[in-house]
Formats: sequence, C-alpha cells, structure tokens
Amino acid sequence: MMADLNNPSLLAAIERQNALYARCLDNDALEQWPEFFSERCEYQITTAANVRNGYPIAMVYADTRLMLVDRVRSLRQANIYEKQSYRHLLGRTLILGGTGFDDVETETPFMVARIMENGQTILYATGLYLDRVAVSEDMQSVVLHERKVICDSPFVDTLLAIPL
Amino acid sequence: MMADLNNPSLLAAIERQNALYARCLDNDALEQWPEFFSERCEYQITTAANVRNGYPIAMVYADTRLMLVDRVRSLRQANIYEKQSYRHLLGRTLILGGTGFDDVETETPFMVARIMENGQTILYATGLYLDRVAVSEDMQSVVLHERKVICDSPFVDTLLAIPL
Amino acid sequence: MMADLNNPSLLAAIERQNALYARCLDNDALEQWPEFFSERCEYQITTAANVRNGYPIAMVYADTRLMLVDRVRSLRQANIYEKQSYRHLLGRTLILGGTGFDDVETETPFMVARIMENGQTILYATGLYLDRVAVSEDMQSVVLHERKVICDSPFVDTLLAIPL
Repeated sequence: MMADLNNPSLLAAIERQNALYARCLDNDALEQWPEFFSERCEYQITTAANVRNGYPIAMVYADTRLMLVDRVRSLRQANIYEKQSYRHLLGRTLILGGTGFDDVETETPFMVARIMENGQTILYATGLYLDRVAVSEDMQSVVLHERKVICDSPFVDTLLAIPL
Repeated sequence: MMADLNNPSLLAAIERQNALYARCLDNDALEQWPEFFSERCEYQITTAANVRNGYPIAMVYADTRLMLVDRVRSLRQANIYEKQSYRHLLGRTLILGGTGFDDVETETPFMVARIMENGQTILYATGLYLDRVAVSEDMQSVVLHERKVICDSPFVDTLLAIPL
Repeated sequence: MMADLNNPSLLAAIERQNALYARCLDNDALEQWPEFFSERCEYQITTAANVRNGYPIAMVYADTRLMLVDRVRSLRQANIYEKQSYRHLLGRTLILGGTGFDDVETETPFMVARIMENGQTILYATGLYLDRVAVSEDMQSVVLHERKVICDSPFVDTLLAIPL
C-alpha cells in the first residue's frame, strides 16, 4: 500500500510536532529536546553557504540521540541560560517527498529571536529545517530521523547557545 | 458527549480567529479589538519571568470587556498612533487541553514588529498567548475568555502601545 | 454550483503555494518566480500609507508575467545577489472572499529578514500580501492573478532587492 503523503492529517501531525519542538526550546526544557529524535538520528547545524558549496561542514554534529543528551548536559554545566531566552517562529512545513510514513522528507523555514535579560531582542538566526521524519500509522507519534538546520547567515554562534 | 479537541476543524477555526485578531491590531482597528473577548473576560500582559517566579504581576490587566473598551479609548486620546504601526506574526496554535468546545486551552507563539513613520523597523515583542477560548458547535464563533500575553522580555513598554 | 470557499483543502492548497513562493525567493531561484503568476497578472509593491491615503503609487508595478521575467533579468545583470539572502516568514492566510475557485481573494501577513554576507541579519520588510488567486478544481494548481505587496514601512528599498 502506497502511503498518501498528501493526507492533510500527515501535515498537521508534523506541524504540530514542530511546534512542540520549538516550544520545548523556548521553554528552556532542554532535557526533553533529545526525545524528539530517534536513537540513531542525525542532527546538524550548518550554513546555506556550506550547503551551496557542497562543504560537508557542520558547526554542530551528532549522529545519536545520546550525543544530544550530552550536548544538553554540557550546556547546563556552562550554566549561562538564566541570562537569555529564545523564541522560534516557524513557517508552514512543506512535505517534499518520502517513501512512506516512516520516512517523510520535509522542509520548514524558521526565525529565532534571542532575548537578553535586559530586554534587548535581536533576530538571532534565520534558516530552514531540512528533515526526515517517521510518523506512526495513527499519526500520534512523530520522530526525527534527521534534522539539518541550515542557517542563512554564515556566522552563527552556536557554542554556548541552545540548540536550534 | 465528549468534545473532540483533536478535530482539525477546531484548530483551523481557532487559528483563523487568531489571524483575525492580529489583523485587527495591525490594521489599527482597535475599536473592534474588544469584540474578540467575552464580556467577563480576562486579559493581561505579563512577562515570562513573572510567570516563572510565580509573581501575579501584570503590566496590563483587565477582567471585563468594558475595561478593554476603556483602554482603547485612552489610547485614542493619547493620539500617537499615526506615528507607528505593528505587524504580528503568529506561529501554529497548540491545543493544550480543555473540557469542551466552550473551554479550550491553547497556546500560540508570536513575534511583533514595530514600524516607525521613518521606516525604522524593530522586533518589538516576542512571546506567547496562553488562552482559554469558547468555540461554538458549528465553529463559526470563537471568543476569548482569557488571554494571557506572556512576553519573553522583562521590559515591554506597553504604556502607549497598542494591545498585544 | 457555488464554490465552497470554506473548504479546508482550498486554504491548504493556497498556503502551500505561498510557502513555495517564499521558498523560491529565499532559495534565490528568481527565474522560477514569474511562474507563480498568470500571464496577464498584476504585481505591485506599495506601502500601507499609500493604500490608506488612496494614492495609486507603487514602487514596483508589473501587469504581465513578461514584465516579471524582465525584472528578474535586470536583477541578475545588476549581479549583487551573492552578497545577501532573504528569509520570508508568512502568517496564516485568510480567505477574504471571491466569486469561485478561479477568483479567490486572500490576505497573508509576512516578515522578511535580510542576511548580509557578514552575517548581519535585519528585519528588512513587514507587511501583507493582498492577492487574487485561481485554484484549479482538483486544487493541484494555484496561480496568482494579482499580488499587491503592501509594506508597513513607507521606505522600502526595492531597487536592487529581490521581489517580495
């Protein structure tokens, strides 16, 4: 049976999950963030210029969920999070293709604002998520196999920042 | 009969109403703004820090629709509105829970830009709406019982600004 | 037969097309941009102040698809595009009215960020699309008959910039 990738419920389920993902980060619930990924996932942050030029370079790279857990632990130890918060706004998700519900390719544009303790608010990052997700048949579960965060700017300071 | 809060038409109706709300403010149609609320509504603007710390402090607080009408009247008398405009962009609404169509809890992230007469455009506010809304059975009417505007920044100048 | 403008699939088809439009511009695929329009389309960029005051002034105006093709050609010859990129984020589309699927009036708010080669990211433009679109009966095709880009700022530098 061919999966129907045009099913509007599929898009709704994926968009809902993306909204929950953004909410997790914006609520500083970083410990829950790895749970959006499958165990053997791929997560990277790179730039549009790297992608355009074919450079296999990433500012952040992880290929297991455990590495994401580690990353959160490091960020917590650096312990600078009281001083800033983030706000993600996502555009509409486009379903680009896929072989079935267990492997759907999607793209979602984003803007992220960073808000400092003194109120200063800047447009911190813009770009898009290029994803491969698995959606269960009943569409209750959506898991990221792969999230490639492609930032528009060539310079994104990710060292001490929350994940994107 | 248990209301189905997963009904996709429910989300669509609420998102449409939120888009109309943003449009009302961005079109400077402030006199129509109180009509989005029920008569005995609760509207407040507060900060994420206040919510996090459990401080029951709000920069703006109203618990009837009439108070919202009054607020619009004051803003019009202050009469500084020709000089700036706003643009709201909302993320996807999440339905968090609720006891039925007459009491649905939702959350919607936002970014608001402020545009001055000289063209200067800044990211004025970011945050989320935490709402309790009533949706009619035919989903033609959506009314806010409660809108808590939670700003990410601890410092939001709301004195002379349009509602959020 | 009266077309059902409340059909949720109609909104989904239009929002998808708007997302593809934004993606086309953000991917710098300008040569594909005119294909979003019908042959005898109307495209203009103007300001909210012009619209409010009834001034029939546009910073950019085209009334055939061919003029859009020409515009892209000029922009490519000016050849400054390696130096900046754009990121559009669109709000929810509102269907305002229309006489049928071949003439649907819609409104969509937007924010556009501009990202310079050195990473500097600014909120470049905000506003709304006021559109007349034709959607095929099977909703596979959505074409712009008219797109009026209404910028909130009175000053938008469109001379050397990508279309909005």
